[in-house]
Amino acid sequence: MKILVSEVGPRDGLQAVKRVMPTAAKHRWIRALAEAGLAEIEVASFVPAKLLPQMADAAEVVREAVAIPRLTVLALAPNLRGAQDAMAAGAHKVTMPVSASEAHSQSNLRKPVDAAIEEVRRVVEWRDALPGPARPGVEVGISTAFGCTLQGEVPEDFVIAVAARLAAAGVDSIGLSDTTGYANPAQVRRLFRRLKAEVGERMGGAHLHNTRGQGLANVVAALEEGVTTFDASQGGLGGCPYAPGASGNIVTEDLVFLLESMGLDTGIDIARLVAARAVLAEGLPGEPLYGHVPDAGLPKTFRRAAEGARA
Amino acid sequence: MKILVSEVGPRDGLQAVKRVMPTAAKHRWIRALAEAGLAEIEVASFVPAKLLPQMADAAEVVREAVAIPRLTVLALAPNLRGAQDAMAAGAHKVTMPVSASEAHSQSNLRKPVDAAIEEVRRVVEWRDALPGPARPGVEVGISTAFGCTLQGEVPEDFVIAVAARLAAAGVDSIGLSDTTGYANPAQVRRLFRRLKAEVGERMGGAHLHNTRGQGLANVVAALEEGVTTFDASQGGLGGCPYAPGASGNIVTEDLVFLLESMGLDTGIDIARLVAARAVLAEGLPGEPLYGHVPDAGLPKTFRRAAEGARA
Repeated sequence: MKILVSEVGPRDGLQAVKRVMPTAAKHRWIRALAEAGLAEIEVASFVPAKLLPQMADAAEVVREAVAIPRLTVLALAPNLRGAQDAMAAGAHKVTMPVSASEAHSQSNLRKPVDAAIEEVRRVVEWRDALPGPARPGVEVGISTAFGCTLQGEVPEDFVIAVAARLAAAGVDSIGLSDTTGYANPAQVRRLFRRLKAEVGERMGGAHLHNTRGQGLANVVAALEEGVTTFDASQGGLGGCPYAPGASGNIVTEDLVFLLESMGLDTGIDIARLVAARAVLAEGLPGEPLYGHVPDAGLPKTFRRAAEGARA
Repeated sequence: MKILVSEVGPRDGLQAVKRVMPTAAKHRWIRALAEAGLAEIEVASFVPAKLLPQMADAAEVVREAVAIPRLTVLALAPNLRGAQDAMAAGAHKVTMPVSASEAHSQSNLRKPVDAAIEEVRRVVEWRDALPGPARPGVEVGISTAFGCTLQGEVPEDFVIAVAARLAAAGVDSIGLSDTTGYANPAQVRRLFRRLKAEVGERMGGAHLHNTRGQGLANVVAALEEGVTTFDASQGGLGGCPYAPGASGNIVTEDLVFLLESMGLDTGIDIARLVAARAVLAEGLPGEPLYGHVPDAGLPKTFRRAAEGARA
């Protein structure tokens, strides 16, 4: 069975660190990741440079990334303008932020949930009017789907209602994000089961955080509900400001090890993936990188899933 | 549903660190853990003090621990002599090491697997001859059940054959240990399913390591096979000599958060458990402690399982 690991480090990770990685360093890192076998990378965010100087070179990064063979290039866009810019640069897919928490939506997007969904609808409409057949995809990972640090509880019925509206708006893929590191495996299973029942084949990936050390435990739960796409970032880049080991995003290296060990084929070569950490570190000297597998190494018994799984 | 978290820090953790924790500090830590709600603690190892000076006070530690109300006190014993000493000190249960890898058995116990099983049989025989009704329990967690750093692959048939022989010898509880941090969730599920089919109600707990960040993912898999006892150590004490975050034992604090969040009742108060870290740190100044939950805190939405699970 094949699983898609979607690397979000160059977007989600880099926008969370203070330093700005030079454009050429981004190119090198993205190429190293693709050469390790990553089939999809979220490379940039199309937001005003005055808000996120780390993403000022978004168009250039996308143009370079789409030249890499067999790589699906994602970009984040908060609105129609950003989506148009991302698509003009050649992004294969645009991912848009929609939150299931009104408080988080106001704080993060400065608009209510309704308006965020409406913005996505406009992007889909515009995309659908483009000449085919290679129209870009439009994806949403619903933020704070498992709880919100601002408003607390996020009703599951509301999360599913948001998903249904996004599906009705024509979004290709609707995933769930544990933005706050609140999720537990029972909740992950329950919510993805409901999502699949609601939107069927439009069910998207899981974006899970490791804030409380539960990231990979939640991956196991999502796998059981048929989720086949997982976001992660190299070295857990985009970590939160806690102590060593307490990262935000789940660590790509550890996720790929989990999946491959289970006999799930990611197409990724862990040794080359670990080697790409040096390319990342060169572009962001001194930035802490997390992950267990890079330190512990692979077990003596490890075999890649593609080489014959024992799971 | 109730889950037993068996704290192994005072034995497994302390024997792995170089410094010797003073006996009085051990008492304080064990009491703090029990007061947080831990119902079972492995407090000492009955091995010669010249091999493990950290455990020279084993009998004294057991005698003090059995005075704590409602606490089940475990001790490790490598042989009949150690088991007799542990039981004389009042241990409620003795856990004995048996490996499923000949190479590891030789390296760790200086005897073949057969001889280790035979030693366990002698202990059970001796125990059974004690006057009842409060005879101590005898447990085994089979080491290297998921692979061995020395011999590599450990055949699953052999693991199950060892379990069958231990059950035939009268061992009360037979668990599986991922001594090397090699396990993956598919393997955990498969092996515990086979264990249960082989030994039924004698199926014991899971002793999982977090060496490659997979500890809690493996817990989720074991839960699904009906495992109801999990070993863990506070702060991941007993960690391996890798970089920050790369611990050996799974961290009790993060495990309890996982279980309670899923609506599984551990009887443990996480705030008091986290507070016990200070007592541990006082007894072992400077020793690194791991764990995500102690740094990140509890989610705004967190409720203890006993207060009404949402899972």
